[in-house]
Formats: sequence, structure tokens, C-alpha cells
Amino acid sequence: MLIKPGELLANINSPADLRQLDKSQLLQVSDELRQFIIDNVSVYGGHFGASLGVVELSVALHYVFNTPDDQLIWDVGHQAYGHKILTGRRDQFHTNRLYNGISGFPKRKESVYDTFGVGHSSTSISAALGMAVASKYKNESERQHIAVIGDGAMTGGMAFEAMNHAGVSGSNLLIILNDNCMSIDPNVGALKDYLTDITTSHTYNKMRDEVWNILGKISRFGPNAQDIASKIESGLKASLLKQSNLFESLKLRYFGPVDGHDINHLVNVLNDLKDIPGPKILHCLTVKGKGYALAEKDQTKWHAPGKFDKITGEIRKKHYDKPQPPKYQDVFGHTIVELAEQNSKIMGVTPAMPSGCSLNIMMNAMPDRAFDVGIAEQHAVTFSAGLATQGMIPFCNIYSSFMQRAYDQVIHDVCLQNLQVIFCLDRAGFAGADGPTHHGAYDVAYMRCIPNMVIASPMNEEELRNLMFTATQYEGPFTIRYPRGEGVMPDWKRPMKALQIGQGRKVKDGEKVAILTIGHIGNYVLQACELLAKDGLNPAHYDMRFVKPLDEALLHEIFTQFDSVITVEDGCVQGGFGSAVLEFMADNGYNARLKRLGIPDRIVEHGEQIELHRECGFDPEGIAEAAREMAELSAKKQKVKATV
Amino acid sequence: MLIKPGELLANINSPADLRQLDKSQLLQVSDELRQFIIDNVSVYGGHFGASLGVVELSVALHYVFNTPDDQLIWDVGHQAYGHKILTGRRDQFHTNRLYNGISGFPKRKESVYDTFGVGHSSTSISAALGMAVASKYKNESERQHIAVIGDGAMTGGMAFEAMNHAGVSGSNLLIILNDNCMSIDPNVGALKDYLTDITTSHTYNKMRDEVWNILGKISRFGPNAQDIASKIESGLKASLLKQSNLFESLKLRYFGPVDGHDINHLVNVLNDLKDIPGPKILHCLTVKGKGYALAEKDQTKWHAPGKFDKITGEIRKKHYDKPQPPKYQDVFGHTIVELAEQNSKIMGVTPAMPSGCSLNIMMNAMPDRAFDVGIAEQHAVTFSAGLATQGMIPFCNIYSSFMQRAYDQVIHDVCLQNLQVIFCLDRAGFAGADGPTHHGAYDVAYMRCIPNMVIASPMNEEELRNLMFTATQYEGPFTIRYPRGEGVMPDWKRPMKALQIGQGRKVKDGEKVAILTIGHIGNYVLQACELLAKDGLNPAHYDMRFVKPLDEALLHEIFTQFDSVITVEDGCVQGGFGSAVLEFMADNGYNARLKRLGIPDRIVEHGEQIELHRECGFDPEGIAEAAREMAELSAKKQKVKATV
Repeated sequence: MLIKPGELLANINSPADLRQLDKSQLLQVSDELRQFIIDNVSVYGGHFGASLGVVELSVALHYVFNTPDDQLIWDVGHQAYGHKILTGRRDQFHTNRLYNGISGFPKRKESVYDTFGVGHSSTSISAALGMAVASKYKNESERQHIAVIGDGAMTGGMAFEAMNHAGVSGSNLLIILNDNCMSIDPNVGALKDYLTDITTSHTYNKMRDEVWNILGKISRFGPNAQDIASKIESGLKASLLKQSNLFESLKLRYFGPVDGHDINHLVNVLNDLKDIPGPKILHCLTVKGKGYALAEKDQTKWHAPGKFDKITGEIRKKHYDKPQPPKYQDVFGHTIVELAEQNSKIMGVTPAMPSGCSLNIMMNAMPDRAFDVGIAEQHAVTFSAGLATQGMIPFCNIYSSFMQRAYDQVIHDVCLQNLQVIFCLDRAGFAGADGPTHHGAYDVAYMRCIPNMVIASPMNEEELRNLMFTATQYEGPFTIRYPRGEGVMPDWKRPMKALQIGQGRKVKDGEKVAILTIGHIGNYVLQACELLAKDGLNPAHYDMRFVKPLDEALLHEIFTQFDSVITVEDGCVQGGFGSAVLEFMADNGYNARLKRLGIPDRIVEHGEQIELHRECGFDPEGIAEAAREMAELSAKKQKVKATV
Repeated sequence: MLIKPGELLANINSPADLRQLDKSQLLQVSDELRQFIIDNVSVYGGHFGASLGVVELSVALHYVFNTPDDQLIWDVGHQAYGHKILTGRRDQFHTNRLYNGISGFPKRKESVYDTFGVGHSSTSISAALGMAVASKYKNESERQHIAVIGDGAMTGGMAFEAMNHAGVSGSNLLIILNDNCMSIDPNVGALKDYLTDITTSHTYNKMRDEVWNILGKISRFGPNAQDIASKIESGLKASLLKQSNLFESLKLRYFGPVDGHDINHLVNVLNDLKDIPGPKILHCLTVKGKGYALAEKDQTKWHAPGKFDKITGEIRKKHYDKPQPPKYQDVFGHTIVELAEQNSKIMGVTPAMPSGCSLNIMMNAMPDRAFDVGIAEQHAVTFSAGLATQGMIPFCNIYSSFMQRAYDQVIHDVCLQNLQVIFCLDRAGFAGADGPTHHGAYDVAYMRCIPNMVIASPMNEEELRNLMFTATQYEGPFTIRYPRGEGVMPDWKRPMKALQIGQGRKVKDGEKVAILTIGHIGNYVLQACELLAKDGLNPAHYDMRFVKPLDEALLHEIFTQFDSVITVEDGCVQGGFGSAVLEFMADNGYNARLKRLGIPDRIVEHGEQIELHRECGFDPEGIAEAAREMAELSAKKQKVKATV
């Protein structure tokens, strides 16, 4: 179903069309754009609040700047729906985040207006600065480079690294600080307080102006007073102009704050800024969810609400007759509280994902023991390491793909020192609709090569609980990876027990072929075996549970019994779980045929998890097919042997 | 040779001894400590300037604070020699950085005074905050937590992430900003300028006091003036006290700057700060190399000068009769200039290692095309990605172990977008005396799993040049890894030629066993073959050159001919080059015996590279031994076959 755009928006097929309009029409364009986003997201789902918050900014930026020649980079990209709609993708917008549809994030392959692919936070200033430095080198002095970054993303360390460089670069760079006090959850930290201070207690510019006025008055008191005034003025100039603002400390000219929903004022300000060369920052105040009352009120819930009734605001949920399995993240959230109630050393750490990983349950229950440290994965890991040195047992919960941000800290601060930090990697494997930036594809490969690290993955909710409990009793780094979404056990609140580190289990006996799995994807093998039973095939299935250490006793058993083995993992096959099994084989002189199923060595786009598993050949049918081929090969070989 | 300490230092076996002294004796202790460092480093080598710069700070901190109960974390740790000497390691100090000797960095295993292992930059605030939050939770309110961090390390993003959290934590944390304007090379960026501004043009506190004084005078002009003064005062309070300082913006109480070489003043200030609860920062000005004139003058050269004559300052260098092979880093430095002269798109990027990676050659020759972006690996990579989007060809040179800091940026900003960024990973493999924090052990494993990435490693200088040239002609991400130290070709300046991507070469024909290598370590195989020739053994040797893509044609040739194969790599064997070969074998149904030599799955400590290679069994003798074993097995198998 194609949703109808409003009458102005219907004729905007590129920013060039937008720039044909009179400034007075931009208010209507904004209204139509907002309505179009509401209409679409309510029907098709997707990220919601962030894009509503930057409707006016999106319109103003494309109106004032000469995109795509001027280069616009949206940090994270949740907020770029308006941008996509204005840049030629209005009529594809209903395919947003669907398999083979457009991406939920800006993406270079998709449009020349998407100058830089995003998804992870805090990259925009670095990328824009790279572009700006290149333009400067090429003498394209007119070219503008604009990074739009939220106050949440601004807490990520690399944004600071980039500002430190930008401030001395002399490049033509405009940073727009989209200050809405939110990440997905409310933004945290000192920077947020600081921005609020600037905004609420007194605006910086207003105060500066006032002091200038007063100084003018003082000088009328005569020469003596003039002398004093001039002394104060020089002090003030030094302090107010040079140092009085965090951003100006970093040599960025600071402007604002301005109301990010006043389209006319925005256009004026951006036009003025176009003529000011060098690196600068515009502090722009916006409201996440702007224009949709419920979304303004509960911004976390409406970050990505799923489909909803736009009139009543009722979020559409599937209804089931019987109890459903919970999401893995909620099992984590409830279980850590349960563990922490019994063990006073346990703490929880999340970098800005309390609702995403369900640590918010613990933050509410035990606020002195659970920490949202902001969009700051690096700090989250080393902060956890610091806690561990004091005998605490921190669970540090980070999405698999975001853990890439803290890789050095995992190696350098946790594993080299063999500290007891428990990493829970949520969203491991295909993330689904969020696509390649969010797929947790590489964690097994990049974690497995680090000494001292234990890596485990549960096949169901009960195993997640047992692994969490087990990790609290193991004095070293411990990674537990689990996927986005639901498990398989409606009745999951079972008593916990410690597992043997590095012990897998046989799920089912079988013949000819052994299928070895790690984690939730093992459930597909159950389905595959049902399919195979129809062909009279009966492979064995082992849930290895631990990637590291591998269950060597079990592997010896398997390779003694089977000469055809399949490994299945929701992770990259280069260097992953399957490769660990190959290493075991090589080190122990086994010669079985081994087929590795998993994420192939190419970028896999977005879509539902099952669609992506199917595309990559490790959905239940794909696994069954691999098992059939293996069984056939095995039969041929037997035949050859018999003939000989 | 044990170097004799001065008379006070000779009796300081722990900080408790130091704290027995009268404050008036601390000047002498500092002098003796400085002399002891000079005496030792001149004879035994090691890092020099950084520790000289914090002699007084080291003495003052251990004098004022109750270490180890109060917890002291040295960022990076180059500067911790004084700390080590004062905390019971004076008489082992001559073993510093030697195989089986003490570590050049603080290390938890080594001493209770080393509260957190360091080596990489910018971790100290996160770690200290973790400790402080744990202390708060445990009601240890008296306990102090002190992070000492340089102005260079302060540019690393995670320091900012940590301050953002610290500012709102209410924890008992003291950050000492050791401001000496230096990393290894001069520090860069806006923050550095800002700190200089605070320090030189007017000190913040002095200016604040002066303005207060003036306001006092104004109010004497009568009620009208009083009104004005009070208005100014409230404005000033808001601006100066709340916002006038970058650190105070982040809710850290700011003190200083103070002279970091005035031991008495330092002791007083630290004593005062002990009584001020909450997070705070002391800005401390020091001179890197303080007390050794030559080191003060050329701080980069004297960061880690090697052994030297302490009287003349002459740095001891080996003298050779004939030309020696250059360091790989210098081949990089000269070659990038050569390439850039021919190709205007080429640029160079380094995060604070211009002299370490020799990009300084290009920075001098082409300042508009080579960038030191500060200690900011994440920014360095995404900045390079931004350059690449504009058709530039950036070489981004980062030490292998530091590249761990930018892992997400390599995946998310470069490889997902398939941008032409050329990563040169210097110090790949064992780093040597710097030890485990600096070993470039994991790069092949963590890079190999990323789609679109090409990974190559040169066996000699000529190959490095050819690979660099080849990379400029390949439109995608390209990693070239090479080790610390010298290559093997004195006559290395040869014309460059493009190599076929993914093509290895046969170094020498042979029988029974094939040895496959990647990179410089291949030269050990030449030596191993000489050893083996004495036993009548003649293995084949292949320099695969590319880890990704593998030379499949060559591998088919090898596995058709050989059933005994050894892989050798100066990198981790879990998921490394050898595992890539195993994957090829599994995918193609080969059943050879394969032995992987390389860095084992445990933490390997410091020592000379050859000592570490020997320990891990892949020095020339180790490789030869493995080949002997393989040849024997192969012979046995042949015998069994013959008998059957």
C-alpha cells in the first residue's frame, strides 16, 4: 500500500524541487512530511520519534544547502526518514527496513544524498571532517559539510576525538548538535547536564550580551570606572569568548541554542552560518517525537514502537492463546536481579541500552548497582574492569555489533588481566531489520582469539540463566552471546544450576551425520531433523554450548563416530565456531568432512532474521539440505569402500 | 650490574618508608630518584622522558596518599618508573623490560601498588572510576582513587566518556592531568591549545580572583554601582564558576594549574584535595625529560632513547661495517612520500605516532596531505573513511595492537562501505620489550572475519613497497601488516610493481613437508631450512603473502603435492592464517596433516622478539623441529602404506 503524501510533498522528488518553493511554504512541507512519516511508520513500523524530532531540520538543511554537493551526514541515522523522503525515496519508503527494501539507515549504495553509511553512534563528525579536509585540499572552498549529531551520540568518545581535530583543522565544517536529551533512553552524564544548564538557566548568548550592556553603562561613571570596565572586559573576553563554552574550548565557534522546530528561524540561521568559514557548532533544541503527543510523552517507548493505530496510539501486538517464550533480553534482565539479590558483588553496566537489553529492570530495583554510562562502550568495559579489581562481579551488557567499539578494552583491560567481567552480547547473529551495521556477525571470531576468554551461547532461556549463574562462579572473563528476540521456553523461570565450563551436550543420537551447533540457532536443527526424518535420515545433534573452551571429550566422541560433520552458527564462518572445530580436528589428526554453515564472507543486508538465515542457507531447510548432501557423500564413500 | 641508589632512596623499600620522612627531605628524595632513573635507563635502556617528568609527582602522591589502600592508576604507564622504584622494585629495576624481568608498565601481577595494568592510552579514568564506585558501594568513604593522565592521553575518546560519567557519579575520584604538551610526539589538537591558553595567557584562578577584586571596588561607587556589580557577579558566577572551564562543564571541580616540579607545593595541594570529596581534576604542569637537559630539549628523541652515555648524552648505536636493512617503518615512511609524489590522491593519517611509524617524513614533506590526529585511533579510521568517500586514497598507519581501538570503525565505516582505506599495521606480531599490551597478536584473526578486507604481509622491504603500490590500485579496504624492527634488504629502494591480489609465491621447492608462511617471519624458514639441510631434510617453502584472499590455485598445488604442511605466522593461532588454510582444506576436501605455528592461546610476556618466538616454538630452531617431526610422521605413514 502506497501512502499518499500531502500536496506539496507529492511534488518533491529531490531537494532541488524543495528549493524551488518559497520560504513561506516550508511550514506546510514540514507538516506534510511529519504526517507522511506518521502515516507510514504506523502502518509499516520502524524508528519513529527521532525522525519526527528533526522534520524541520531536515527540511531546512535541504532547503538552505546545495545537497548532494554540500554533504550532509546524519549520525546514527535513526532520524533520517525525513531526509530519505525528501531525497527521492518517498515512493519506496513503504519498503523501509523490509527484505530487499530500502535501509532504515542512510547508506551510500542507496542514494548520492546518503554521503556516509551510519548505524553506530558518534561517527558523523569524523566522517564529515574527512570530507571537509578533502574539499579543502581540492580547493572546493564553497563546499559545505554538515554533521547532525544528537546529544546522546555526543557522549561517544570518538565524537570528542573528532572535535579535538576539527577545532584546529580550519575546515569548513558545521556540526549541528541535535539536543533532545535522549538517546533511545534518556541521555545521561555530565555533558547532558551541561547542555541543560546552557539552555535553561540562562542562554549563553543572552548572558554575554547582558554583561556587555552593563559594561557599557559602567564606563559612563567616569575615567576611573572606565578603567575598571575595560579591565573586566578584557577578563570577560578571555573567559567568555575563549573559554566559557565547552565547544569553544575545543576551538569550535558555538551558536545557539535555537529552537529546532522553528522552520523560518532555522532557515535564517543556517543561511547565516553558510557564510562563516571554519569549524562551528549550532546547538539546536528539539523534542523527540515532536508532533505526535504520545511519542513526546513517552520517548523511549516510541523510539521504535512497531506498528500502531495512529488515531488511538494503540501499539499493535500479536495476541496468543497460550503463553509465549520471552525475549532473551528480558530473561537477562530478570535473571541478573535474581542473581544480584543472592550475591551482593554483582553489578550491571550498560552503555545507553537500559531498555534495549532490559538492564532497566535492575536499574529500577537496585539503582546503586546498575549503571547506564551513556553511549560509551569503551568506558563501559574498562569501568567494569575497574569494578572487577575490587571484587565486584560486573555483568557488562553490550549488543554484539556495538562490542566492536570496545574490542581493545576487552583485550587490554579485561583479558590480559584475567578479570572477572561477564560480557552479555545481546543481538548476536543477524539483527534483522536493522541490517548489516547491527548484525552481530563477528563476535565469536574476534573474541575467540583472545586468551583467557570463555565464550558460551545458550540454546534456550534456561541455558541463558544457567550460563549467567555459572559465569558468576568463574574467576575470569566470560562472554555469553544470545540473539535478538524470543527464545523457546514459555516456562523459563526455573531454578539455576552451575554448568561445567566447556561442556556441551548431545541433543539427540543419530547416524551418518553429526550436526554441531552453538546457541539458539540449534533450535533450527530440531526442525531440520523433522524434515530429514521424512527422507529417512537421522543425523545426530550436539549443542556444544561453549565455543571456548571446546568440549574436547565430546568432540573426540563425535569424530570417532562420524566422518561427516556440519557446524551451524549464527555468526561469520571465517574464524568462527566451525573454524574452532577445524582447529581441534587438525590438532588431533581427525579427517572427517566438515561443512560450516553460518554467515558467509560478504555483507548481508537487512530483512527478518529467518529471511536472512534462509538466504545464507542455515534456516531449517538449508540445514536439512546440507545434511542430505553430507549423507549422500557419506553413502557414496561407503559404497566406494565396499567396492574396493 | 646493580646501580646504587642515593642515601635516602636506598632506604625506601615501600611508600610506608617514604611516609616516615620529613616533608623537607622530599626534595632530596626527588633528586635521588631522578638520578637513579637516569643512571639505570642510560645503562639498560627503556622509556626515559616521561618518568623524569613525574618524579616529584610520584614522590608527592606516595607521600600524601595511603597507597596501596588508596589506589593510584598511571595512564599508559611510560611514566611509572619512579612509582615502581618507590614501591619495592628498586633492586629489580635493572631487569626492566628484559625477558623474565619486571615489566615496563604497571602490572597487577607484579605488585599490589600496580592497581591496574596499562600500556594503551586513556584507560585510567574509567578504571579509577570503577574502583571509586566500588568503594562507594562498599562504604569505604575514606578511600582515594587517583588517575594520572597526560594531556596526550586526554585526547583519547574514552577519557572523555569516562569524565562524562565521573562528573555525575559523586565518586571520590581525583584526576591528575599531567600536562606536558607531549604524547611521544608533540601533542596536537584543540584541547592542547586550550590547555596552553589556560596556562599561558592568564591562569583561570588568577583571573577569577582579579575580577572578584574589581567587583569589590565597584560596589564602593554607591547603591547604583552595587546593583550593577551584583548583576555582573551573578552573571560571572554562572559563567566563570559553572561554565568557564571545559572540565567544570563536565562537572569536575577544577584546580590548578600547579607547577608539577615544586614538590612542597604539590604535597600541600594534594593534602588539601584529599579532603574535598567528589570528582575533581588537578591540572599539573610538567616538563617531559625534566632534569636531563638534552631530554628536555628534544623530547621525542628522548622518549625512549635506548642506552646512552649519561655524561655526553651520546646515544649508543651499534656500528656496522656494511649497510644494514632499514626498519619496516622507515620503508613505509619513505615509500608513501614516493607514492604521493606520483599520485595526488594519496594522503597519510596517524593517531599520534608520526615518529613511531615514520609518517613524520610525509608530514614534513607534504604537510597538507599527512595528518597526526592525536591519540584517537577511532577518529583516525573514520576520518580516513571520510577522505576516501571523496576519492582520496588514505594510508592509515596504526600499530597492530592499537588498531584494536578502532575495530568497529574498520568494520562499520570502512569495510561495510567497501571504501579504499589502506591500513598499515606496524608492530604486527610480537612487539618485544613492550610486552603483551603491545603485542600485535590478534590482527589477522580479527581482520580476517570482516567482508571486503584484503590482508597482506610482506616478507621483506621490497614486498612492502610493492604491496603499498598495489593497494593504491585496489578499490577497497586493504591491510598490510609488518613487524617492529628491521627487514632483510639493505638495498631496498627498488622500483615498485603491482602484485596480483591474492597471489603467493613459492620460495623454494622441496619434499615431504611444505612450510607456508605469511610476512617477515618467513625469513626464519630460510634459516630453518639451513638447519634441516644438515639432517638431509628439504621442505618446500611458500610465502603466501596474502591471508585474504588466499592464493587458492597455489594451495591446490600444495595440497595435491604434500600431505604434511606447516603454517608459520607471527600472530595468534586461534583463527589466524593457519586457520584460514584449514578452512580452505575443509572447503576443498583435503586431508593433509597441518601443524600451525604461531602465538599460542595464552598471554606471552615481554622480552626480545627472538626470545618470544623461541618460547613459542617458532624461531628457526622451533620451525626446524616441527618440520623434523612432520617428516618423521610422513615417513612412518609411507612405511605403513608400503607394508599394507
